[in-house]
Amino acid sequence: MASMKIDLELVQAFLTKFQTTDRSIVLVTSGGTTVPLEKNTVRFIDNFSTGQRGAASVEYFLEQNYIVLFFYRLSSTLPYQRHIKNIFDESSQSNQNVYLDQYHKHQRSLLLIPFQTVADYLAGLQQLCCLLKPFGRSALIYACAAVSDYYIPDDELTEHKIPSGQNELIIRLKPVPKLLGAIKGEYAPNAFVISFKLETDEKILGEKCLQSAEKYNQDIIIGNMLKTRTHQVQIFERMKKQWTTINRLQSNSEEKEIEYHIIEFLCNKHRIYQINDK
Amino acid sequence: MASMKIDLELVQAFLTKFQTTDRSIVLVTSGGTTVPLEKNTVRFIDNFSTGQRGAASVEYFLEQNYIVLFFYRLSSTLPYQRHIKNIFDESSQSNQNVYLDQYHKHQRSLLLIPFQTVADYLAGLQQLCCLLKPFGRSALIYACAAVSDYYIPDDELTEHKIPSGQNELIIRLKPVPKLLGAIKGEYAPNAFVISFKLETDEKILGEKCLQSAEKYNQDIIIGNMLKTRTHQVQIFERMKKQWTTINRLQSNSEEKEIEYHIIEFLCNKHRIYQINDK
Repeated sequence: MASMKIDLELVQAFLTKFQTTDRSIVLVTSGGTTVPLEKNTVRFIDNFSTGQRGAASVEYFLEQNYIVLFFYRLSSTLPYQRHIKNIFDESSQSNQNVYLDQYHKHQRSLLLIPFQTVADYLAGLQQLCCLLKPFGRSALIYACAAVSDYYIPDDELTEHKIPSGQNELIIRLKPVPKLLGAIKGEYAPNAFVISFKLETDEKILGEKCLQSAEKYNQDIIIGNMLKTRTHQVQIFERMKKQWTTINRLQSNSEEKEIEYHIIEFLCNKHRIYQINDK
Repeated sequence: MASMKIDLELVQAFLTKFQTTDRSIVLVTSGGTTVPLEKNTVRFIDNFSTGQRGAASVEYFLEQNYIVLFFYRLSSTLPYQRHIKNIFDESSQSNQNVYLDQYHKHQRSLLLIPFQTVADYLAGLQQLCCLLKPFGRSALIYACAAVSDYYIPDDELTEHKIPSGQNELIIRLKPVPKLLGAIKGEYAPNAFVISFKLETDEKILGEKCLQSAEKYNQDIIIGNMLKTRTHQVQIFERMKKQWTTINRLQSNSEEKEIEYHIIEFLCNKHRIYQINDK
């Protein structure tokens, strides 16, 4: 599990293709981040995230004609690929070509950028936001990666594998620096910024979303519960101080994934955000 | 990331098919195990392991006419499937059908049994070894999963997500109970048992293998270094007190994966082990 740096030239070359476009562009972050416990990493702390939400969201952004930078945890779920069954799965494979065709249709508008560790993620988020700064209000940052809260700073890491056979292992972790506030504050001040808050205790979810919005100035914060996250989210718009609940099961198009509804909602808000500038 | 119990009836039904066979049978464990840090798990400690070695080994055991129980970490590498490229990979896909054909040829002899947490793994290993006991010396246990050394016992786990925003997070872990010794000692005393030892510091590798063999009575222990594990392993036979080095790059069939050479070596040893009983 080595650290991964972004190939900035590749990203810049991709963005250059769309310099004169009037299309909107989105940075989707996806998957969990890892926290190495050793320099030669055998053990690491991980956050639960399959990357399913990020991968699904990419497909719906592309359908809304967005250009997409997909900044994803290596080996987490990939858009389109997620519909392709593995050879052990005996369920019907008949629709695979639909997704392959969708992928080929949108391929030119999608760039995949992998990361692994929380350090990779933090460095990459800053770099990518800075590259999106020239897009002004047309840029949307959709931060849906599950970022570790605690890590071991590089200078405190042991070189080799922690030995087994001790009676107790004590791991001391420091808080991960929070970059979310720096997106609106510095890296891409005009971008429309959305982040997620995942909790397991419903009682504190709303409060946590408000605290986060207060601290980091996102335009929209989406609260979700671990157990119900595939059918319900609570969306808070910071400027309007307004809550919206999306519940897939109560909608008219129940068969659609919740990400379809979330992206439709966000694209509408982003459109208004861009008009308000003019 | 919920706990997963083994479907013992399914395993028993699979084994019943081969009750009167004279084929050998192998249990391959594969992938890393996870250590939940919360009961409603958002964070967990993971061991680095793609499951590549286990998945590759399964294919070579099947080629050697073994019946295979593949006890693998959910979402780690799968045999045959590992050769199938994803839709973003632009390299040649021409050989895919070869692997599909191989899979279909061996499908009847292979059972996939998934796990996630170290607790799942420990419970499952015991159950599967006990089911293999009737196979006596025909059973081979190939323990190649990267099992966590430390965990938080269930009664010390917090219910909800550890809050962010503290100045320091201290995690106290206890040693995971070692079941490896119980395989020869109790669960499947006549099985031929192989385990792996992975280190990052070459100086201690041999010593660690010897210590492990002393403690757990495996028949064979395979030492490997994180950086060179895809081309070199050191194999120690406990009874003969003999070391063998396999280096793929120095062999006549360099183009073969190292697992091909390992499995060929082990199947020969297993054959002798079975003959010695008669």
